[in-house]
Amino acid sequence: MSRRRQIYEGKAKILYEGPEPGTLIQYFKDDATAFNAQKRGSIAGKGVLNNRISEHIFTLLGQIGVPTHFLRRLNMREQLIRQVEIIPIEVVVRNVAAGTLSKRLGIEEGTQLPRTIIEYYYKDDALGDPLIADEHIAAFGWASQDEMNDMADMAIRVNDFLSGLFAGIGIRLIDFKLEFGRIWENEYARVILADEISPDGCRLWDMATNEKLDKDRFRRDLGGEAEAYQEVARRLGLMPEGEASSVLDLDTHRKKRGK
Amino acid sequence: MSRRRQIYEGKAKILYEGPEPGTLIQYFKDDATAFNAQKRGSIAGKGVLNNRISEHIFTLLGQIGVPTHFLRRLNMREQLIRQVEIIPIEVVVRNVAAGTLSKRLGIEEGTQLPRTIIEYYYKDDALGDPLIADEHIAAFGWASQDEMNDMADMAIRVNDFLSGLFAGIGIRLIDFKLEFGRIWENEYARVILADEISPDGCRLWDMATNEKLDKDRFRRDLGGEAEAYQEVARRLGLMPEGEASSVLDLDTHRKKRGK
Ligand SMILES: Nc1ncnc2c1ncn2[C@@H]1O[C@H](COP(=O)(O)OP(=O)(O)O)[C@@H](O)[C@H]1O
Ligand SMILES: Nc1ncnc2c1ncn2[C@@H]1O[C@H](COP(=O)(O)OP(=O)(O)O)[C@@H](O)[C@H]1O
Ligand SMILES: [Mg+2]
Ligand SMILES: [Mg+2]
Repeated sequence: MSRRRQIYEGKAKILYEGPEPGTLIQYFKDDATAFNAQKRGSIAGKGVLNNRISEHIFTLLGQIGVPTHFLRRLNMREQLIRQVEIIPIEVVVRNVAAGTLSKRLGIEEGTQLPRTIIEYYYKDDALGDPLIADEHIAAFGWASQDEMNDMADMAIRVNDFLSGLFAGIGIRLIDFKLEFGRIWENEYARVILADEISPDGCRLWDMATNEKLDKDRFRRDLGGEAEAYQEVARRLGLMPEGEASSVLDLDTHRKKRGK
Repeated sequence: MSRRRQIYEGKAKILYEGPEPGTLIQYFKDDATAFNAQKRGSIAGKGVLNNRISEHIFTLLGQIGVPTHFLRRLNMREQLIRQVEIIPIEVVVRNVAAGTLSKRLGIEEGTQLPRTIIEYYYKDDALGDPLIADEHIAAFGWASQDEMNDMADMAIRVNDFLSGLFAGIGIRLIDFKLEFGRIWENEYARVILADEISPDGCRLWDMATNEKLDKDRFRRDLGGEAEAYQEVARRLGLMPEGEASSVLDLDTHRKKRGK
């Protein structure tokens, strides 16, 4: 097989040309970044876990009728996806205050929001992914009103489904980020869910202990990052029995690191 | 305490006057009926389990913003609810063909439906809860168009959430039945979710084995009814450890009954 062409290397994934026109291969790296890549590191095995977790969630979303770019997993770190024209907007859904929302609005982390909030960020690393309003999106033509409606509707459906999925395995879905893209069918563009859904882009708190099972362990130097991602995969039924300990003890891990 | 007044005795529950105006106590019996009560029996402990399962699900639905009648659980078999004026429509949501849909339309049980289907049945035991269309509802004034829209929107949200919740614990949500009721706030009526959500009114199949974990075990004389309800409660994290075996073996149970 001839060497395949790399299309793009991002912070957490690499895109390669796919076997057929209109397809891409998404390769999941172990690289971890935070604060707009000012902090860099890696989480051992993250790429393998995120590939599996994202496959699992996109498959389930497809089954309830949310269209996604996912076609099939190819191997431990790669999945085949439909190529889309990425809409340069990060759609963030928040159920509970945390992270930048807590900081910007002075709301204590862990506070249940009066209602679910959808936020839009302009996807531009150089600008630090700034928060934007509907008006900006309309003014600069990043998405049409129909596309905005479709993204909001899908984001709410994904939130309802994931809130249930994680509640079933003792995890509170605090917030998460989605990316969408356009595909053309004849002359019509349609918006589908793209990128990934994994602990990299979700805040997931253990319901019993409030332990963080997501990238905040890396952002905040809490230790136990790999164990946290494994625990999410294990609860989702994605780890072969025995491969991950069934008892999460991130505290012990933290103590070992002397925190 | 003076003897409280019984308001209604149904097939699976009894309603008593609540401690405050606008409240009722919902008592869960072990009685089981099927085929419009032509078949009668009981499932040991069902009332206790359905009380807990319904509490759990209504609490989670409340947290994602679906308004429900549930106020709090009072004891093993009773919960405090808001009194509503029941809308005499059973709202059935179907993801996979089964039961009457399979029979009426000749679609094999277990066939994934091309899209989720909402059906409405007129809640009237004497008529055998007949299937109705939107036109009937409008013509007879059972619900307004706004109420119909609210019920359909909530039914879809409940379906998304429950599909996730059950997927998280290895269960496929085939279909389920909801009831809604009106409450008055000032002079305005609002529709909220009422009645119960439990294996009595849901079809729940184990994802790995397709074993039925719901009232179809009773309807079809499969045996292991109590064990199936316990298994659902256990997977939802509602059984004290050790109270229920973690290994479901309905087959063994069936064999013991000589089926
Ligand atoms: N189906 C798709 N087609 C084209 N591009 C995609 C698709 N899904 C995701 N992408 C883009 O591929 C990149 C994935 O790599 P990632 O490491 O997340 O990059 P980044 O550092 O830009 O976030 C992202 O820029 C994302 O927008
Ligand atoms: N919040 C509520 N207020 C008033 N009635 C309710 C409420 N929730 C459920 N109900 C009604 O109470 C009864 C519950 O008992 P059940 O045994 O299910 O009765 P049935 O045999 O009529 O189905 C149902 O008729 C249901 O419509
Ligand atoms: Mg990215
Ligand atoms: Mg009933």
